[in-house]
Amino acid sequence: MKKTITLAHGNGGEENNELIKKVFYKAFKNDILSKSEDAAVLDVNGKIAMSTDSFTISPLFFAGANIGKLAVCGTCNDLAMMGAKPKYLTIGFVIEEGFALRDLEKIVQSIKEELAINEAIIVSGDTKVMPKGTIDKIIINTTGIGEIQKDGISSNNISKDNMIIVSRDIGCHGASIFAAREGIEMSNTIQSDCRSLYPIVQKIIDKNINITALRDATRGGVSAVLNEWANQSNICIEVQEEKIPVNNEVKGMCEMLGFEAMSLANEGTFCLAIKKEDAQKALEILQEFNENAVILASVSDKHKKKVILNSPYGTQRFLDTPTGELLPRIC
Amino acid sequence: MKKTITLAHGNGGEENNELIKKVFYKAFKNDILSKSEDAAVLDVNGKIAMSTDSFTISPLFFAGANIGKLAVCGTCNDLAMMGAKPKYLTIGFVIEEGFALRDLEKIVQSIKEELAINEAIIVSGDTKVMPKGTIDKIIINTTGIGEIQKDGISSNNISKDNMIIVSRDIGCHGASIFAAREGIEMSNTIQSDCRSLYPIVQKIIDKNINITALRDATRGGVSAVLNEWANQSNICIEVQEEKIPVNNEVKGMCEMLGFEAMSLANEGTFCLAIKKEDAQKALEILQEFNENAVILASVSDKHKKKVILNSPYGTQRFLDTPTGELLPRIC
Repeated sequence: MKKTITLAHGNGGEENNELIKKVFYKAFKNDILSKSEDAAVLDVNGKIAMSTDSFTISPLFFAGANIGKLAVCGTCNDLAMMGAKPKYLTIGFVIEEGFALRDLEKIVQSIKEELAINEAIIVSGDTKVMPKGTIDKIIINTTGIGEIQKDGISSNNISKDNMIIVSRDIGCHGASIFAAREGIEMSNTIQSDCRSLYPIVQKIIDKNINITALRDATRGGVSAVLNEWANQSNICIEVQEEKIPVNNEVKGMCEMLGFEAMSLANEGTFCLAIKKEDAQKALEILQEFNENAVILASVSDKHKKKVILNSPYGTQRFLDTPTGELLPRIC
Repeated sequence: MKKTITLAHGNGGEENNELIKKVFYKAFKNDILSKSEDAAVLDVNGKIAMSTDSFTISPLFFAGANIGKLAVCGTCNDLAMMGAKPKYLTIGFVIEEGFALRDLEKIVQSIKEELAINEAIIVSGDTKVMPKGTIDKIIINTTGIGEIQKDGISSNNISKDNMIIVSRDIGCHGASIFAAREGIEMSNTIQSDCRSLYPIVQKIIDKNINITALRDATRGGVSAVLNEWANQSNICIEVQEEKIPVNNEVKGMCEMLGFEAMSLANEGTFCLAIKKEDAQKALEILQEFNENAVILASVSDKHKKKVILNSPYGTQRFLDTPTGELLPRIC
C-alpha cells in the first residue's frame, strides 16, 4: 500500500477498499462491522442516547492525546454525560491528499485503544479524501449511541438543594493546545486532560448516587457549562473563587496571556450537580480518579440565570458565557 | 447576526449559541432536539440500522440539488438500502471562516425539506468553524438510525434465482458535477439524480416483494455495486450491455471524455437483486418512479466473483471495480 493517502483512497473503488481493509477494519474489526453493508444492523432495546461531534483539532498530536483519542473521548463523554454507556460508534474520516499513512495508523491505533476503555465498537464508517490544499490534514466525525443506565439526568432540574462539583483541575486541554501551537516552553509539562469519562460516571451510578446533571466542560470551559445550567434551570450559581482548581502551569499561562482558566477548554473534566446530602460521597469517588476534584459552587436565587464569582475578600462579579474565539480548532 | 461565519461561531459560547438558535434550531426544531443536551435521548425498540457519511462535494450548489439535500439523501438512502425507515439523524457542520450566512441558510433549508420527505428528524448536532484557508467552504457529516422494516436484506445472499434491476438511468450525478466543475455547456440539461429512496423502497416492501439485496450506486457507480455483490455472494453477474440505461447527454459526455457510465456516481439510483418470479412486479413499481428502470443483469456461475458485460454482438468483457479517482469530491 502507498505511504501517503491519494485521492483514489476516497474513490469508492479498489484503493478505497484497500484502505478500509488494511487500516480501518484491521483496527476496528467486530462482528457487527464485518456484517455492515450500507448501514450496520443493531439490536437495541429501550432508551438510548445519541450524539455527534466533528474533530478539527490542530496540531493533531499533542501532549496527552491525539485527534483519534479525542474523537472517541469526545463523543463517548457526551453519551456518558447523559448517564449512557457508550456502545456503538460510527466514524467518518475526511483526509487531505498526501497525508502520511503512518500518522493515520497512529490515530487509528489510539481510536482502537480508547474504544476498548469505553467497551464500545465502531459499527459503520466513511472515508473521503479531499485534494491537497482543500482541507488541513484530517478531520474526524464520530457519532455514538449508548444505553441509558440512569434516567432523568438533565440540566433543567438543578435546584437550591444541589451542590456543583468539578471533577479535576481545569483548563489543561486548552493550555496544552495553546502551548503546542505557540511553542511555549512550559508546554513540556502541561498535558491535555483528554480521557474517557464513562468509567467514572459508572462508578457514581453504581454507588446509587442520585445525579441531577452532568456536563463535560469542553469548548467554552466550565464558564459555559455553569452559564448554561444557570439559564436552563433558572437558578443562580455561586462559585467560590478560591476553590477553582487550576494547576500552577495553567495558572501561569493564564496570568501571562490574560486568559480566564474557567473559559479554557477541557476534554476529560466534568461538572456534576448533585443533592447536598450526596455531595461528599460523590466527591470521594471523584477524588479516587483525581485528587483535585472539588465542590466548586452552590445554587441560590440571588441573580437568576447568572453565575457569580465570590472572591475570598467578599467581593462578587458575574462570570459570563465566553464570547469571541480564543483558540480555534481546540477540538 | 453577522452575514458571514466567524471563528466565534464555533467557540462553544455566545456566538455559537446564536448560530445554533437562529439557523439550526429554527429549521430542525422538534421535541427530541429541544430536550437534547450532550446527547439526544431516544426511545428505540428492536432492530435498527445505523450509518454515517461525510459530504465534501464541490461545487456546493449544482443542477438538481446542493450539499444539504445530498447530506440527507446520502445517509437516509444507506438506511433505506438495509430496509430501514430513516428516523433519527445527527448533523455535524465544519465551516470555513467567512462562509456566507445566506448560503448556510439555503443549505439548511434543503436539509429541512429532505428530512420531511424521509419523515426523519435531527436529534443532535455539532458546529465547528475552521480558520479561512484550512478547509474549502463547508463539509457536512450526517449519521442516521432507522427502524428495520424488512429484515435479512444482504449482499451475501444473491443467487442464480435472482435478477438484478437498476432503478433508473445511470451516471447523472457524476456527469452533472463534472459539467458544473468544468463549465461544459451541456450541463444545462444534466441534472443530478440526488433523491431520497426510502419512499420507493417502502412501496416495494408494502407490496410484499421479497428483496434479496439493495444498494445505492454512489461513488464507483453501478460497477462498484455489481462487483461488490459478485464478490460477497460468490457469483458471476452478467450484464446485458444494450440494456444499460444511460440518457443521451450522459452518453455524449462519456464518449467525449472517455468515461464509463457504469462507473459514474449516482445519488438517487439503486440496484435491486430480486427473485426471478418477483422481478416483473418490482420493475413495474420502480417504473412508476422512473420509466428508465430496467432488468439489467442476471446471475450465473460462469466466472465467480466477476461481472461480465455481454455485448449485443455476442462478445464478452469483464467490468472491473473502478480504480483511480475520476472525480474527487463527488459527494
